Amino acid sequence: MSILVVGSIAYDSVETPFGKREDALGGSTLYFSSAASLFAPVHVVGVVGDDFREEDITFLKERRVNFDGMSKVPGKTFRWGGRYHQNMNIRDTLFTHLNVFEDFDPVLPEHYRKLDYLFLANIHPALQLKVLDQMEKPRAVLLDTMNFWISGAREALDEVIRKTDILIINDEELAEYTGTDNLLDGLKYLRDRGPSTIVIKRGMYGALLYNNDSFFFAPAYPLPRVYDPTGAGDTFAGGFIGYLAEQNTLDDATLRKAVIYGSTTASFTVEDFSMDRLKKVGRREVDERWHHFKDMMRF
Amino acid sequence: MSILVVGSIAYDSVETPFGKREDALGGSTLYFSSAASLFAPVHVVGVVGDDFREEDITFLKERRVNFDGMSKVPGKTFRWGGRYHQNMNIRDTLFTHLNVFEDFDPVLPEHYRKLDYLFLANIHPALQLKVLDQMEKPRAVLLDTMNFWISGAREALDEVIRKTDILIINDEELAEYTGTDNLLDGLKYLRDRGPSTIVIKRGMYGALLYNNDSFFFAPAYPLPRVYDPTGAGDTFAGGFIGYLAEQNTLDDATLRKAVIYGSTTASFTVEDFSMDRLKKVGRREVDERWHHFKDMMRF
Repeated sequence: MSILVVGSIAYDSVETPFGKREDALGGSTLYFSSAASLFAPVHVVGVVGDDFREEDITFLKERRVNFDGMSKVPGKTFRWGGRYHQNMNIRDTLFTHLNVFEDFDPVLPEHYRKLDYLFLANIHPALQLKVLDQMEKPRAVLLDTMNFWISGAREALDEVIRKTDILIINDEELAEYTGTDNLLDGLKYLRDRGPSTIVIKRGMYGALLYNNDSFFFAPAYPLPRVYDPTGAGDTFAGGFIGYLAEQNTLDDATLRKAVIYGSTTASFTVEDFSMDRLKKVGRREVDERWHHFKDMMRF
Repeated sequence: MSILVVGSIAYDSVETPFGKREDALGGSTLYFSSAASLFAPVHVVGVVGDDFREEDITFLKERRVNFDGMSKVPGKTFRWGGRYHQNMNIRDTLFTHLNVFEDFDPVLPEHYRKLDYLFLANIHPALQLKVLDQMEKPRAVLLDTMNFWISGAREALDEVIRKTDILIINDEELAEYTGTDNLLDGLKYLRDRGPSTIVIKRGMYGALLYNNDSFFFAPAYPLPRVYDPTGAGDTFAGGFIGYLAEQNTLDDATLRKAVIYGSTTASFTVEDFSMDRLKKVGRREVDERWHHFKDMMRF
């Protein structure tokens, strides 16, 4: 089955304790696609400026990523700059230049409207609703991290969440959105307002799947070195949703395997800057690491 | 097989968002014993004042906990007071009155010296070395959390760690002791200096077992309500070591099961104040929850 993703396309300037990159390929949509396309065809909705280098996405086109929904308009592509601390869980945003992304108005090509899996990356909920309105009847709507919109656009966010089947967030967002620090109370609050399945991303502590009152826990992969954490969340979503779309099944057993695929693709992302590691990885290597996860959880 | 534990015996005054207790039974030794005694006989080395209420430990004596090594001396029992925040990962120490614990000089009764499993709870490394010197040939030496001593008594701590087989710590201690934020580098640094097995306690994020270069991850049990986190770490150690002593095996498969037993006993601890929940729990209930853990990790 095919996936539709809507979100940002960007050039990132990133500094970590292990190096520095200027104007490297970034944005939630492309990170997501680089992981999800290892499993299933992906269709992109986004906007870039006329400075966008088409050759940067050749590796994605070769992996069944369709860019018919990416519009190129006069102006500059979205740019983000950030610096990670020695403790890479902490980062400072140095600049955010929305550029052409500021007037982004997602319009879906006709052949996108019938797609089965819709991934709404972290953009304004009003834009997400516009995308939802254009879709015919997706099998699953998946919504990612929404930090800015909890206080900034609560009403529209509530409406998106009502239409969401699977929500991917972190502990802080869960507490802020639901108004409770208690994990179980927060999960139940959300479940009563839309998504029957919730995935909590916990960075170096892994991820938690809550599905119809059952729990599943996945660790993060212990890596010798994390070079650049940018895109880890989006590529977690990519591996997770990619596997669901490939299997075209949403039962508990498949969801659990999908979470481990999400942790697997995210672990490759952080092994190099930008999408450099994901460009090189193939399905066989992903499956090998997936089996390492199995070993780390068996008892 | 039998366990020897040395550490504090205290009366705690604790305040959490769910209530308040004054002079409730506490201290690493008793928390540890209340969990470990569900699996194997425990022998306690510690000191109390003449205000200590013998009836407080009746439930432990009924569970094969031997107190021949607990001396009662003139003065007051160690007292600790703490207050937990709404986010219960954060607590303020309100007071620490060492009282008779200040002059604690551990002397092992003759029949303690041949015991097989030695648990060194969080006390000054110089006292831990005194205990080690009195032991004949323990099968396994286990050392817990050592936060204060990393800068305060580094040399003695280094010596204890050289003699330790299994080290139980948290991420902050790992980083501080090893001088690196990198998990793998930190684990290898420690392994090269003593313990072949390291368990990292991560509170609500579970625990990680590092054993001869293999990893195992265990989640924390998702509870509807955490009433009082005091003693969670000591009862994690209790369930973990209790199971190892019961099985009298230290292979990787047993260590993994033991970590889950540690998470299980810790999850009961926090369901009520002091040792009130652990007093009531039996092995069957522990095993039931242990199997829930298995379900939460199966894929």
